[in-house]
Amino acid sequence: MYDLIKKKRDGKELTKEEITCMIKEFTKGEIPDYQMSAMMMAIYFQGMEEKETLALTMAMAESGDVLDLSEISGIKVDKHSTGGVGDKTSLVLAPMVAAAGVPVAKMSGRGLGHTGGTIDKLESFQGFNTDLSKETFIKNVNEMKMAIMGQTKDLAPADKKLYALRDVTATVDQMSLIASSIMSKKLAAGADAIVLDVKTGSGAFMKEEADAEALAREMVRIGNNAGRKTVALISDMDQPLGFAVGNILEVKEAIDTLQGKGSKELLELCYMLGSHMLILGEKASNLKEAREQLVHTIKEGLALKKFAQFVEAQGGNPEPIFHQELFLEASIVEEVQSIEEGYVEKIHCQEVGNCSLILGGGRETKDSEIDLSVGILMKKKVGDYAKKGDVLALLHGNSMEKMKAAKEKLLGAYTFSQSKVERRPLFHKVITE
Amino acid sequence: MYDLIKKKRDGKELTKEEITCMIKEFTKGEIPDYQMSAMMMAIYFQGMEEKETLALTMAMAESGDVLDLSEISGIKVDKHSTGGVGDKTSLVLAPMVAAAGVPVAKMSGRGLGHTGGTIDKLESFQGFNTDLSKETFIKNVNEMKMAIMGQTKDLAPADKKLYALRDVTATVDQMSLIASSIMSKKLAAGADAIVLDVKTGSGAFMKEEADAEALAREMVRIGNNAGRKTVALISDMDQPLGFAVGNILEVKEAIDTLQGKGSKELLELCYMLGSHMLILGEKASNLKEAREQLVHTIKEGLALKKFAQFVEAQGGNPEPIFHQELFLEASIVEEVQSIEEGYVEKIHCQEVGNCSLILGGGRETKDSEIDLSVGILMKKKVGDYAKKGDVLALLHGNSMEKMKAAKEKLLGAYTFSQSKVERRPLFHKVITE
Repeated sequence: MYDLIKKKRDGKELTKEEITCMIKEFTKGEIPDYQMSAMMMAIYFQGMEEKETLALTMAMAESGDVLDLSEISGIKVDKHSTGGVGDKTSLVLAPMVAAAGVPVAKMSGRGLGHTGGTIDKLESFQGFNTDLSKETFIKNVNEMKMAIMGQTKDLAPADKKLYALRDVTATVDQMSLIASSIMSKKLAAGADAIVLDVKTGSGAFMKEEADAEALAREMVRIGNNAGRKTVALISDMDQPLGFAVGNILEVKEAIDTLQGKGSKELLELCYMLGSHMLILGEKASNLKEAREQLVHTIKEGLALKKFAQFVEAQGGNPEPIFHQELFLEASIVEEVQSIEEGYVEKIHCQEVGNCSLILGGGRETKDSEIDLSVGILMKKKVGDYAKKGDVLALLHGNSMEKMKAAKEKLLGAYTFSQSKVERRPLFHKVITE
Repeated sequence: MYDLIKKKRDGKELTKEEITCMIKEFTKGEIPDYQMSAMMMAIYFQGMEEKETLALTMAMAESGDVLDLSEISGIKVDKHSTGGVGDKTSLVLAPMVAAAGVPVAKMSGRGLGHTGGTIDKLESFQGFNTDLSKETFIKNVNEMKMAIMGQTKDLAPADKKLYALRDVTATVDQMSLIASSIMSKKLAAGADAIVLDVKTGSGAFMKEEADAEALAREMVRIGNNAGRKTVALISDMDQPLGFAVGNILEVKEAIDTLQGKGSKELLELCYMLGSHMLILGEKASNLKEAREQLVHTIKEGLALKKFAQFVEAQGGNPEPIFHQELFLEASIVEEVQSIEEGYVEKIHCQEVGNCSLILGGGRETKDSEIDLSVGILMKKKVGDYAKKGDVLALLHGNSMEKMKAAKEKLLGAYTFSQSKVERRPLFHKVITE
């Protein structure tokens, strides 16, 4: 290991064998953390070549369980988002794509941050179970084209261990390391093709578009080099996606969107991501054709029906999909009124996220409990005009004290302009190689 | 600690408080190795400013015992060599300088490498004891101007811990870290002024003169910034120093040199280093005056007498100083004859050192036992002419098998030229700031 650290420190390329062996021994605990953290810092400064990044990703993917989805007929297409505020895309996209005939066999995680993850959101349905056996998971996908299960403990354990180390040694911010961490889990999860939604803007991990693009390119290269067709979209996360931030509020918005009446922005994003999924899944030969199929699933209520069928198949009560008043509701709903007048110029995503966290909608540590009912419903978004006293957002909460702090946070997230404001485009770029 | 790693990673300067606190907590075990190794790698790439290096050195010096030598009258001048092959300088220099009236209160270590350290070499005298109490140490220096004790266990423990970590994480080769490691021990050892012998050439830690000079400058700056007058000499270590390599063989050469009849090169080095020590110790006002005093200690046998007095005061039997045949001797002495003809062009130091190690004269690990009797006596040095069959060196050993391997090693260390060879100068430079 000493020689490997020195080699990387001196800017030389590590071989596939060296990287594979290093990750294998690290996972077994045979390489101490202090050597691995020095290696990570050397990589931070010297970077990795395409071949090295692929080798690292493969080694981490193969460090634990690798899902074999060959019993599922059809081309399995997975989607991954680098995350943001109000991102409920999976809840709309998965049933839509499944309704169009592409099998969605998805592993999802719980969230650490502003709101819960997809798994947490799905638990808004009483009885919903993500702890599926591999057999049930495969059976469900084969029968109804869709299943979502929680990440198995042993998915890419090397990545888990390495990430925990990078997190405390200031070696997270390195493009190849970020890309290999994400892709190792995707590869281990067994999909044949992958569509990546790489966010950019104030609410994204990659604030700058150039960084988002670089990360997208790294991941697309890894995917393609690993034999999984991979496409990445760079999409905007400079203000929260849609109107709802918070678990149940987001589920409701997703249901509205599946009925074609939710956020247009969210629906558009799902059409775009979904179209690429349909093409990779060989259900459509071009974007126009794919989009038509997806519009059909919404117009005819097929996507909504698919969602209900999926919730029921995993033990959840699907009734609130059709009667949203059955969802758990927060005890207090309060308006946040504008104290300024003008066009909304910016909505600082992170601050809106923190507002949700304050209300209890997210996890500060992995043991925190989430309050699924709380969150924010935005009434004014970038480009809208607000007079003094106009409602900017509704806060849903269960504690007056938290409500007060959240209100202040939210007001601070808004900035106004006296001249008209152009919205940023929702899509920035498609990366295919 | 995370913030500090990030700060350094991003090329920013750490404050004195940050460094002091970091070293304090690291010594107490409150900062994990994996964070410290990431920090060391960040320093490897980003370097440290003069202020940071001083702060690190002081923090490490103060991490354990700091010797208070104020009870010793006069200006205590310490000497440190960055090490090389055949370096027995201390054995000649210390009694010479002490005889000239500068108090020598020296802490020395055991060697890890080709031969033992000064402490090991002194144990060639039966009964010699370096495990002195602080009181005896000070009393001896006050009474006879000279004492050498083993390094206390608690001397700069932070440096010990940090060095062990750097050693396995490829973060040793960084100038400021090397300088602060050496100087922290010197500062903790309590001298008022320090003369550094920084070696350059094939047998030195710093092979290139530019590196040796950079290291010398770092150390001189630290010393002066810490309020200890510090001077560094850059001296040659491109071939072994003098003729003897091996513990007792080196002690004998030192005794010869104290009588003015040993290696001229060694004597010259001691005059140079000693002159600077006399100036720093305010016993002479210029190099010429200092040198005259030192020559006097040799000519009049005062330095030799001082050496015997010192050996006796620390429990050793000084008789072999005057009857060298009383020293332990190796059972086999063999000639290494030249198989080539020409001027000796190079003698690869490291290889001669390895030859001594093969014979049993050094330690491969810190628990190895040293055979004090074995070693090499060089008969041909750079610039000398050798015919085929001429004796290049005598090997002293206790095992025919080891002897054979050593002989081959030694032959491999020599390269010859058909044209006359210029010797490299013994001194390259004096660094005072």
